[in-house]
Amino acid sequence: MAVHTVATTPATPSQDAPAVDLGPAVALSCRECGERFPLGPVFACVSCFGPLEVAYDLPTGDPQALRAAIEAGPDNIWRYAPLLPVPADVATKPSLNPGFTQLVKADHLAAELGVTGGLYVKDDSGNPTHSFKDRVVAIAVEAARAFGFTTLSCSSTGNLAGAVGAAAARAGFRSCVFIPHDLEQGKVVMAAVYGGDLVGIEGNYDDVNRFCSELIGDPLGEGWGFVNVNLRPYYGEGSKSLAYEIAEQLGWRLPDQIVIPVASGSQLTKIDKGFKELIALGLVEDRPYKIFGAQAEGCSPVSTAYKAGHDVVRPQKPDTIAKSLAIGNPADGPYVLDIARRTGGAVEDVDDAQVVDAIKLLARTEGIFAETAGGVTVGVTRKLVEAGLIDPSLTTVVLNTGDGLKTLDAVAPTTGPTATIRPDLDAFRAAGLATS
Amino acid sequence: MAVHTVATTPATPSQDAPAVDLGPAVALSCRECGERFPLGPVFACVSCFGPLEVAYDLPTGDPQALRAAIEAGPDNIWRYAPLLPVPADVATKPSLNPGFTQLVKADHLAAELGVTGGLYVKDDSGNPTHSFKDRVVAIAVEAARAFGFTTLSCSSTGNLAGAVGAAAARAGFRSCVFIPHDLEQGKVVMAAVYGGDLVGIEGNYDDVNRFCSELIGDPLGEGWGFVNVNLRPYYGEGSKSLAYEIAEQLGWRLPDQIVIPVASGSQLTKIDKGFKELIALGLVEDRPYKIFGAQAEGCSPVSTAYKAGHDVVRPQKPDTIAKSLAIGNPADGPYVLDIARRTGGAVEDVDDAQVVDAIKLLARTEGIFAETAGGVTVGVTRKLVEAGLIDPSLTTVVLNTGDGLKTLDAVAPTTGPTATIRPDLDAFRAAGLATS
Repeated sequence: MAVHTVATTPATPSQDAPAVDLGPAVALSCRECGERFPLGPVFACVSCFGPLEVAYDLPTGDPQALRAAIEAGPDNIWRYAPLLPVPADVATKPSLNPGFTQLVKADHLAAELGVTGGLYVKDDSGNPTHSFKDRVVAIAVEAARAFGFTTLSCSSTGNLAGAVGAAAARAGFRSCVFIPHDLEQGKVVMAAVYGGDLVGIEGNYDDVNRFCSELIGDPLGEGWGFVNVNLRPYYGEGSKSLAYEIAEQLGWRLPDQIVIPVASGSQLTKIDKGFKELIALGLVEDRPYKIFGAQAEGCSPVSTAYKAGHDVVRPQKPDTIAKSLAIGNPADGPYVLDIARRTGGAVEDVDDAQVVDAIKLLARTEGIFAETAGGVTVGVTRKLVEAGLIDPSLTTVVLNTGDGLKTLDAVAPTTGPTATIRPDLDAFRAAGLATS
Repeated sequence: MAVHTVATTPATPSQDAPAVDLGPAVALSCRECGERFPLGPVFACVSCFGPLEVAYDLPTGDPQALRAAIEAGPDNIWRYAPLLPVPADVATKPSLNPGFTQLVKADHLAAELGVTGGLYVKDDSGNPTHSFKDRVVAIAVEAARAFGFTTLSCSSTGNLAGAVGAAAARAGFRSCVFIPHDLEQGKVVMAAVYGGDLVGIEGNYDDVNRFCSELIGDPLGEGWGFVNVNLRPYYGEGSKSLAYEIAEQLGWRLPDQIVIPVASGSQLTKIDKGFKELIALGLVEDRPYKIFGAQAEGCSPVSTAYKAGHDVVRPQKPDTIAKSLAIGNPADGPYVLDIARRTGGAVEDVDDAQVVDAIKLLARTEGIFAETAGGVTVGVTRKLVEAGLIDPSLTTVVLNTGDGLKTLDAVAPTTGPTATIRPDLDAFRAAGLATS
């Protein structure tokens, strides 16, 4: 039983909604057929099996007042509570409080790439567990609270497991997360240290996912919120906060161009959704923006489809160092293609050597040590500038979604001391490094 | 030639000061004899070889207006520019912009420790390179700019090297940092990835330090700012920002009790200095506070002296997993003893097993994965509560100065999956984890 065909949990229009307060969220709606369902821990449309997403009744009225209210809010994701599926008092509940990470004006990188219109890196390694996953998990936690779940869970290849474990510990949930049994020890430690139950599954990530889908449909899984399965519609909305923050940090202005990594594709679609909401609410000027997707060549189903002019994404078997992007059958791939084409963007990929080069380029120019996914976006940005698809005279934002400390292996083989010497001045002089 | 006896660089009262703008900083003064010297890249008193520290002409006037100016400032260390040795326009210069990290209300940890008066963790793992070092380096960078240095340098056992490399990259300095040649590969990668020169020294950390002192006195080192040697008086001031942030985040109030890790002891003395400044400026009420120092038993020269009632700190040979605190001959040890005794605090230590337990306790209760230094402070806090030296009915702040990702080895041997199972429900049921 695969995730997209779980028969026990699709929503039904007739189902009674629990009386939940998720702020401006009023319903779930099917992205394919538009049918609406009450808010609940469901993720697939009963009519067409399309993915469900959160529908809102967003605040109307004076945009200036809304801007002021946001600016007076906490220095984290909850400043945008009026635009997210969370109750109004969310900031008073225990949470890792992710978000409002730095938007770094990357002048040295811009000079290297020949970008003159302003280049910014949105650095999500500043989140509590050092990846953007803290954003999406934080929203899923509030949904879990609303639905009365007491255990938080997920299937993960490592990073999400840590984010869920940490968030559950802070928020006072039990956690039980599932990973392939043969992960690297570092990732296992990061997933296990928060003290929840960590279960190694004898199989690969697909086996873990399949097992989780079975567990959701079984009495054994009652009371369990799987952040990336039955809470997925809420979880995904966390990525909208990236759009809000970027616009606010640019002075309530949309970037002209943005480069976003593509794994499942969800993040890219939610950033587009966030930009559109900001325009609809009058919080930013309605100007065109171009969205670019970035993949690693070793797992490039969406960029391959984009370049071939296809609407359908053909699955690939991943083989890349950018493991956090290694989803060979991305659920939101077709939506990514649509957004890239509609906005005048593109989807591009770089090979592993280019990923490593780009990680080092970003570190050397801006002092930001990115995860491999950040190497993908920076590398793709360079490629798109060279190809003339990114206009260097316009404002460009590049996402770094994670921290280099989590993917040290990618750069370790080619990163080391310039010299090793005896502790004396003659040896240092001989090394030729004394020019300042 | 050891650091404390470098003959070529002590300050002289007659020396002409460069015309530098370091904001409210007006001079250096000797902590031992009080003699004052012009601002410059010097660190030892010519008269008594005592350590120099920054003397200020701090803002006078309405505390409410100063509070408001700070609160309207950037969400980083530069909101406190009026109280730090930096020019007023510092926030416009390229910097990693560390600081204003989360002060986490740790209710679950408080419950475990029996603290009822409010327990907070100041989590400095949220800094750009994930330790408090970003604060001190950021201040040293501004001093280097003011003195016209073009190369940033340091001696390091790893973490500082990365912080300097990253800060130099962002700020547009060349960097050349020195480490013992036999560090773990992970630390070498973190130090090297920012693209500056990284020099392995065939010797231990003392050899590296000795070499750096020679280099400062040699024409080869001209134009070089060593953040923890000739820029040390400025560098150290960065730790004052921890005091300011904690007070502001508590609602402009000092904590009753604070637990601070002790390596060289500098951080603890600067937090005390910061608290005293806040009182003198009228920014907080003048109430007593107790400062507690925390060490690892395997490197506990200061807690040993404290318990023995000594004023002198006898050097030790470090042997502990808390490597970032493993300074066997702490320069500020006597000052730490003085502050702990004067404020009614204490200096205590925990063994390596207690450090590991405390790392896990903090992760499990609050979702914060701390470096070993954070295990030391949490472990010492528990010990001090049990001993009755920390009053559980009062507000207590515990510092976490770094990130668990940097010291995975400490917890790896005892942190792993709860169970490993086949991907089916029967196997999961048999594992006995399905209670929610």
